[in-house]
Amino acid sequence: MSEQIKVTLTEDELPRQWYNLNADFAKPMPPPVGMDGNPIGPEALAPVFPMNLIEQEMCTDRWVDIPEDILGYYKIWRPTPLYRARRLEKALGTPAKIYYKNEGVSPAGSHKPNTAVAQAWYNKQFGIKKLTTETGAGQWGSALSFACSLVGGIECKVFMVRISFDQKPFRKVMMRTWGGNCVPSPSMDTETGRKILAEDPDTPGSLGIAISEAIEECVQREDTRYALGSVLNHVMLHQSIIGLESQAQMKKIGASPDIVIGCAGGGSNFAGLAFPYANEKIHGADMRIIGTEPEACPTLTRAKYRYDSGDVAMMTPLLPMHSLGHTFVPPPLHAGGLRYHGMAPMVSHALNEGLIEAASIGQTECYEAAIQFARTEGFISAPETSHAIAQAIREAKQAKEEGKEKTILFNWSGHGLMDLKGYEAYLDGNLQDYPLPDELLEKSQHSMDGLPMP
Amino acid sequence: MSEQIKVTLTEDELPRQWYNLNADFAKPMPPPVGMDGNPIGPEALAPVFPMNLIEQEMCTDRWVDIPEDILGYYKIWRPTPLYRARRLEKALGTPAKIYYKNEGVSPAGSHKPNTAVAQAWYNKQFGIKKLTTETGAGQWGSALSFACSLVGGIECKVFMVRISFDQKPFRKVMMRTWGGNCVPSPSMDTETGRKILAEDPDTPGSLGIAISEAIEECVQREDTRYALGSVLNHVMLHQSIIGLESQAQMKKIGASPDIVIGCAGGGSNFAGLAFPYANEKIHGADMRIIGTEPEACPTLTRAKYRYDSGDVAMMTPLLPMHSLGHTFVPPPLHAGGLRYHGMAPMVSHALNEGLIEAASIGQTECYEAAIQFARTEGFISAPETSHAIAQAIREAKQAKEEGKEKTILFNWSGHGLMDLKGYEAYLDGNLQDYPLPDELLEKSQHSMDGLPMP
Repeated sequence: MSEQIKVTLTEDELPRQWYNLNADFAKPMPPPVGMDGNPIGPEALAPVFPMNLIEQEMCTDRWVDIPEDILGYYKIWRPTPLYRARRLEKALGTPAKIYYKNEGVSPAGSHKPNTAVAQAWYNKQFGIKKLTTETGAGQWGSALSFACSLVGGIECKVFMVRISFDQKPFRKVMMRTWGGNCVPSPSMDTETGRKILAEDPDTPGSLGIAISEAIEECVQREDTRYALGSVLNHVMLHQSIIGLESQAQMKKIGASPDIVIGCAGGGSNFAGLAFPYANEKIHGADMRIIGTEPEACPTLTRAKYRYDSGDVAMMTPLLPMHSLGHTFVPPPLHAGGLRYHGMAPMVSHALNEGLIEAASIGQTECYEAAIQFARTEGFISAPETSHAIAQAIREAKQAKEEGKEKTILFNWSGHGLMDLKGYEAYLDGNLQDYPLPDELLEKSQHSMDGLPMP
Repeated sequence: MSEQIKVTLTEDELPRQWYNLNADFAKPMPPPVGMDGNPIGPEALAPVFPMNLIEQEMCTDRWVDIPEDILGYYKIWRPTPLYRARRLEKALGTPAKIYYKNEGVSPAGSHKPNTAVAQAWYNKQFGIKKLTTETGAGQWGSALSFACSLVGGIECKVFMVRISFDQKPFRKVMMRTWGGNCVPSPSMDTETGRKILAEDPDTPGSLGIAISEAIEECVQREDTRYALGSVLNHVMLHQSIIGLESQAQMKKIGASPDIVIGCAGGGSNFAGLAFPYANEKIHGADMRIIGTEPEACPTLTRAKYRYDSGDVAMMTPLLPMHSLGHTFVPPPLHAGGLRYHGMAPMVSHALNEGLIEAASIGQTECYEAAIQFARTEGFISAPETSHAIAQAIREAKQAKEEGKEKTILFNWSGHGLMDLKGYEAYLDGNLQDYPLPDELLEKSQHSMDGLPMP
């Protein structure tokens, strides 16, 4: 029989608890604060999130039980398979062993449902009837629509950045198929949207505007809350299932990674794989953990660690994070999920603590990697995921140069079947890179002037 | 722990042989013939297929070893999970247990790669450097492009029906990502194409034209062969892996189906699941096996069993099959993979032998079923697959009426992420059914007048 490719777990082997890196930081994370620099309490978040999720947001327990209902939802696609990329290794001629965790098998096609079903369930427990959210490329809006239809009894309203809404009509159809209501943002449904449309009827919209609309619609009704697909602590917690499963799978084959890689936008898929390994590192494991971001949006590699707002309109509390500044408008990268000005506070803190390192890559190298991956391993990757592949290939080539048998593990966070435009551009030779000029970086960071320091 | 949803197999449990129903028919199948009614020999097919596949086409061995290399390719997505549709059962309030085999986990998103990787590998063994094929909706062209990139050293040229080529630009990008060359048909690359374009530059094309072009380009070069994604005996053989895995999975949980269902276009995904069960039926199992087709293209339910050509231009040998007539042009159903005038000779023969039965369903009922499936089970189905779901729901409702605890198994042949237009039409209330009028059926069957009888 030919060599093993996949390591699978049965449903019985599904982890029963999420892991919280917040329990293991050497120095505690700075809290979220208001404009006055004073820590905010749970009540400040209550109009926007249900109290059970706010408690998770502030939780410092190491292990959090996964409710039975959520384990039931997870079983629709979890445990996800761990793959050995034997054909890619061979193509690279590397002595490195490359493994990847396939999160693309979920109905929504990415890791996003890991937190979407949890958030929908906790909101339902709290008596919430409707969730509002924003989506850029559409992955998160799809995942939350899917989650609400599974959990049942929760309406889902998605504000989708208008330019994406128009360019990707099928993302909207996905959401509608699951019963979600997706509107282009800015919309006529909110004060914010109406005001912006009155001033500029042809605006392409932005993630900042969409967040403002989602929060505005949320706070107006007692039974409505807002859901965020990345950045926050409870999202990182839910995603830890990825790394925990990987650990069990690697153990089964007697392997252990020397290098752990994820692409990093808001930080959730990276943290999901990396944080359980960060725990191993804290306990003495010799391991490199690398978050890879676009060179066009270099939050971890080039931005300051500051208190900053999560959105352009500054409707969120101030979070301690590596941020390019909340007014930063990233160039039109195909990896829409990595076009965010900030980075999850937990990921930012892990970088500061030396638990992880960061790298950035241009999109041409990423598509080159994604094409090589598709032609060897078979799967077509999301543009975001291609950053993790490109980093893994860099490390595998390095191992070849050094003649070292390294074990590399990366998070294959999702498939790219709904995002093929970037592949077309690459294949047509029309793809460009957007290295960020120093003066633009400097300028965008000024939006944080005057905000308190962590 | 909540109840089990998936039954998985390890790579070690992958079946090592394909099953050939041809060994177990009570009455042998009539052979393919020429226009004179005389059986054709292997040499007649040699310009179009490699000899190793022609041998498989004529093979009556019960079990055929799966080559090690092909097992290696299968491991990229196989064994596929068997699901218990607990949430759908609950929504229907049925006492029936519903299981489905998830073939959507392959990189190309359907069952098609089961035969695509086999065909690419056998062609390579025979020294072939290039494969030509046609594709309608795009599933088969994608699967063959994927297969050629995996196997390596084989060029793939896909003639895609022009109207689909224009409407679904992302299918072409998928093929290009795997290195496939996809051109709209009719094209300027063949005599047939140039002639048709000269007469009608704006023609939308047809599957018949695309087949003619693919065969024309194939026969001109010694190192080139043609590949077909359904209909032929060797395709049914390769697809039997689906049913064989299902049997092993059902056995693991001590279950056995009372009803086995697949959607039927050319017949490959239906046969893949059904034929290993037909073998159980031959050996005495009490079981119904149902092929479900669109009411707009009712090959099994309403068409004559005749010798007919596989394509409009009559470039193929005559095959014994239930056929609407090779001039039949099906209405613009969204389930493009079920828009074929004929039915696989093996499936046709199984119907005649009473091993299987047939049903037809309109597309509105199918989309209704697919929406209910998405909102309970999570996955978004291919339009073709929705016919199997609709049939399973019919049977589950029947079981409810009768108060019987039946076990239903159907083939979830692929996801619908590349084919969301039909969902949009359904959700917008713009979907229509196309019941086939008697006089149209009568008329289309006349194209078989004068052909020999089986």
